[in-house]
Amino acid sequence: MKKPFFIVNPKSYLYGTEILKLARLTDKVAAKYNIDVMFTAKLIDFPEIMANTSHLIYTAQHMDALTPGRGMGKVLPVALKNRGIQAVVLNHAEHPLTLAQLDASMVLAKDLGLMTIVCSDTVAQSRAIAELHPTAMICEPTSLIGTGSTSNDQYIKDTDAAIRSVDPAILIMQAAGVSSGEDVKKVMALGADGSGATSGIIKAPDWESKLDEMIGAAAQFSTR
Amino acid sequence: MKKPFFIVNPKSYLYGTEILKLARLTDKVAAKYNIDVMFTAKLIDFPEIMANTSHLIYTAQHMDALTPGRGMGKVLPVALKNRGIQAVVLNHAEHPLTLAQLDASMVLAKDLGLMTIVCSDTVAQSRAIAELHPTAMICEPTSLIGTGSTSNDQYIKDTDAAIRSVDPAILIMQAAGVSSGEDVKKVMALGADGSGATSGIIKAPDWESKLDEMIGAAAQFSTR
Amino acid sequence: MKKPFFIVNPKSYLYGTEILKLARLTDKVAAKYNIDVMFTAKLIDFPEIMANTSHLIYTAQHMDALTPGRGMGKVLPVALKNRGIQAVVLNHAEHPLTLAQLDASMVLAKDLGLMTIVCSDTVAQSRAIAELHPTAMICEPTSLIGTGSTSNDQYIKDTDAAIRSVDPAILIMQAAGVSSGEDVKKVMALGADGSGATSGIIKAPDWESKLDEMIGAAAQFSTR
Amino acid sequence: MKKPFFIVNPKSYLYGTEILKLARLTDKVAAKYNIDVMFTAKLIDFPEIMANTSHLIYTAQHMDALTPGRGMGKVLPVALKNRGIQAVVLNHAEHPLTLAQLDASMVLAKDLGLMTIVCSDTVAQSRAIAELHPTAMICEPTSLIGTGSTSNDQYIKDTDAAIRSVDPAILIMQAAGVSSGEDVKKVMALGADGSGATSGIIKAPDWESKLDEMIGAAAQFSTR
Repeated sequence: MKKPFFIVNPKSYLYGTEILKLARLTDKVAAKYNIDVMFTAKLIDFPEIMANTSHLIYTAQHMDALTPGRGMGKVLPVALKNRGIQAVVLNHAEHPLTLAQLDASMVLAKDLGLMTIVCSDTVAQSRAIAELHPTAMICEPTSLIGTGSTSNDQYIKDTDAAIRSVDPAILIMQAAGVSSGEDVKKVMALGADGSGATSGIIKAPDWESKLDEMIGAAAQFSTR
Repeated sequence: MKKPFFIVNPKSYLYGTEILKLARLTDKVAAKYNIDVMFTAKLIDFPEIMANTSHLIYTAQHMDALTPGRGMGKVLPVALKNRGIQAVVLNHAEHPLTLAQLDASMVLAKDLGLMTIVCSDTVAQSRAIAELHPTAMICEPTSLIGTGSTSNDQYIKDTDAAIRSVDPAILIMQAAGVSSGEDVKKVMALGADGSGATSGIIKAPDWESKLDEMIGAAAQFSTR
Repeated sequence: MKKPFFIVNPKSYLYGTEILKLARLTDKVAAKYNIDVMFTAKLIDFPEIMANTSHLIYTAQHMDALTPGRGMGKVLPVALKNRGIQAVVLNHAEHPLTLAQLDASMVLAKDLGLMTIVCSDTVAQSRAIAELHPTAMICEPTSLIGTGSTSNDQYIKDTDAAIRSVDPAILIMQAAGVSSGEDVKKVMALGADGSGATSGIIKAPDWESKLDEMIGAAAQFSTR
Repeated sequence: MKKPFFIVNPKSYLYGTEILKLARLTDKVAAKYNIDVMFTAKLIDFPEIMANTSHLIYTAQHMDALTPGRGMGKVLPVALKNRGIQAVVLNHAEHPLTLAQLDASMVLAKDLGLMTIVCSDTVAQSRAIAELHPTAMICEPTSLIGTGSTSNDQYIKDTDAAIRSVDPAILIMQAAGVSSGEDVKKVMALGADGSGATSGIIKAPDWESKLDEMIGAAAQFSTR
C-alpha cells in the first residue's frame, strides 16, 4: 500500500444490495484515480463484492487471534486470507483489543501476509501501537467518532510526529470527522498519508460524487 | 425445525475447500435421511456453501445484538438474514454472552425470523434460558466440551426436565462428546430431540460415513 | 431480609470521609425506622464503615465467581464474607455478567451465606434471573439508569408479575429514577417489596433528610 | 521506588488472617533488608494490613480508569489513593486491559501520584508498554505463569533490552517462575532491577524463611 490511500469503511451501516452498490461505485472511482482504496464490509457480503469489483483492497473490520481449531463464532484469519481478504482493521474504538490480543493478531497477520490497519486514540497510544509496526494506523480521537468534527491540527501533527519517531514506514491515516474533499486535503496537507470516511460518505445524497470528491482530493497528493 | 434434528458445527476447524467439502457431504446425507440438519461455517465461506447445497439449515455461529449503524467488526443480524442464514447459535461456551446481550439478540432474531439455538451448561442456566424461549437449546457441561466424554445420564435427564418444565416447545439437543451413532441414540433415547458434533465428525477418517452413521442414528427417531 | 427494605447504593460517587458520612447517616435512619437497609461502598472503605455503623446490611457492588487461588485483581467472595459483607449486587447494567458467570457467582454466594441482589432490565430477563432464585432483584430499565425518570407503572407491574410467577419468595426492588419519598411509595404501592437510590440521595442537598424521607416512606409498608 | 525491589503478590490465594500474617512477615523482612517491597492484597483486607505494617509499598492488583461517578462494582483510583495505596499493577495476564483502558488508567495514576507496574508478555508488547512510561514493568511469558518454570535467559535479555531502548528509567522486574533466592539472583544478574513471586512464596512451608531467602537475594544487588 502506498501514499496516498483512502479507506471506505461502512461499518455495519450497509449490507446486501446497498453495500454492493457502494463497493461498485468505489471500485469505479478507485480505478479513475488509480490510488490504493481499502473497502470494508460484513464478511458474508464480501464474496459477492469480490466477484463484482477489481480495484479495491478488501479489508476485514476485525479478526481474532486464532488458528484453525475451536473458536465458535470467532473470525478466523486464514479463512479471510483464503477468500481474498488483503487487510484487516484492528483495535477500532467500537471493537477494542487487549494489548496481548492486538500483538497476537498482528503476528498472525504478518504470517499470513495480511496488511494491518490499527486504530489509535491518544498520542501515547499511537506511540505504543507504532512499536508493533502495523502497515498503517488510523488516528482518531475516540470522542470525535461519528460526530462530523475533524481532529484539530495539533492532534494531527502530534500523532503524526509520535508515529514517525517510532517507525517512519507506517502509513498514517487521519480520519476523524472527514466528510469532504476539503477535509481530506486538510489532513493530508498536515502530514497524513491517507484518509477515509464512514458517515461522511454513507450519509451523502450522492455516493458517487462524494467518493469522487474525497478520493480525488487524496489523489492530488499522488507523486506517481 | 422438527425432532429429530442434527447440527454439524465445525467451529473454526475448517474453511475454504475443506468446509465446502464437509457441507456437500452433509447436504447429501441430510437429503438421504430427510431430517433437519443445521450446518455452521465461517461467515465468509457461507455464500459458496449456499450455492452448492440445498438441504441444510444455514446457521451462524454467533451474532451481535445490532441493527444497521455503527458496529465496526460486529456481526449484523439483518445482513445474515439477507444472505440466507436461517438460524444462529448464541451463548456458546467459547463465546459467552451477558444475559442482556442474549435477550437483545433473541428479540432481534425473532423480529428477523431467525431460529435461535442457545447453549447452556448447568441445570439452573437451562431453566433461565428456557424463559427466553429459544427455538432450540444445546445442553453441554462446559467442562466436557472437546473432551470426547458424553454427559452422564443424570445430567441429560435433569436438563431435559428443567427445560420442558418451563417451555415444552423448546427443542433440546444433547451434544457433549457425541462422536458415534451409538452416542446419538443414547442421548435421544434419554429424551433429547436432537444431537450434533464438532470434533466427533472432523476428526473421523471418513467424514461421509461418520455423517451417515450419526445422522442416520438420529433419523431412527423420526416419526414422519 | 424482609419487606420493606431499601438500598443506598453510592456506586463510585463517594469514597473516604464522604462515604463514611453517608454510611453513618444511613445507619442512624435505618435504626430509627427499623427496616432492612443495604449499603454499598468501595471495598477498601468498608472496614471503616463497618467499625462505625451497626444497622446496615453491608453489600458488595460486585464479586467474581472465584475461589482462593489465581485471580489477579478479582473480587474474592470468601474474602468479602470473612470481613463481614452480607450481600452482593450482581449483573448491574454497569457491570453485566454472562449467564454462566452469574450462575457460578450465585452458587458461591449460596455456599458462603451471602445474599444476592441481581439486577434485571426487561421482563424476559427478569423471568430468566428468577429461575436462579436470588434473594432479591432490582428491576430497572437500563435506559433509565441515572436519568431521574421512574419506570412506568406497566413495567413495574409486568416485572413484578413475571418474577412472582417463577418464584414468589424473591424480594423485588423497583429503583429506576426513584428520588423521593413519593417515588418510593409509588413503586411499593404498585407491588415492589423495596426500593433504593443512588443519585436521588447523593445529589440531594441534605442527605439525612433525604434518607429520612425515602426510608421513612418505605417503612410505612412495614407490617412488623 | 529504587532498584533492587521485590513484589509479594498473593493474588487471590490469601485473605483475612492469612494475608495479614504474610504481610507482617513481609514487613519484617523488608525492614531487615531495607529495600523497596511491594505487597498486594484484596482491597477489603488492606486497611487492617496497613494498620499493622510500616515498610511495605501497598499495591493494588488492578484499578479501573474511573473518576468519581457511576461505575458499579468498579475499582475507583482516588478511593485507593485516599486509603494509602501507593502503587497499582495493571494489565496482568489474569486481568488484561485494552490499550485504551491501560492508557487511561496510567494517566489517572500519574495524576494521583500512584506508581504503575504494568505486565507484559512478548518483546513487542514490552516495547509498546514502555512507550506509556510506567514506573515499573513485570515481564513474564504468559505461558509460564504459575508453572514454576523461569523465563529463559534470552527472553530476559530481549525484554530488558527492548524496554531500555525505549525508556531506560523504567524499572524492570522478571518474575516468571521465580521461587528461590537463586532464581532471584539469576534474573537480576541478567539485568532485571527486581523480582517477585506468588506461588513461590505461598506454597513454601515456611513463609518467613522463603521471604528472607528471596528478598535477601534481591538485596545483594543493592548499591545503597
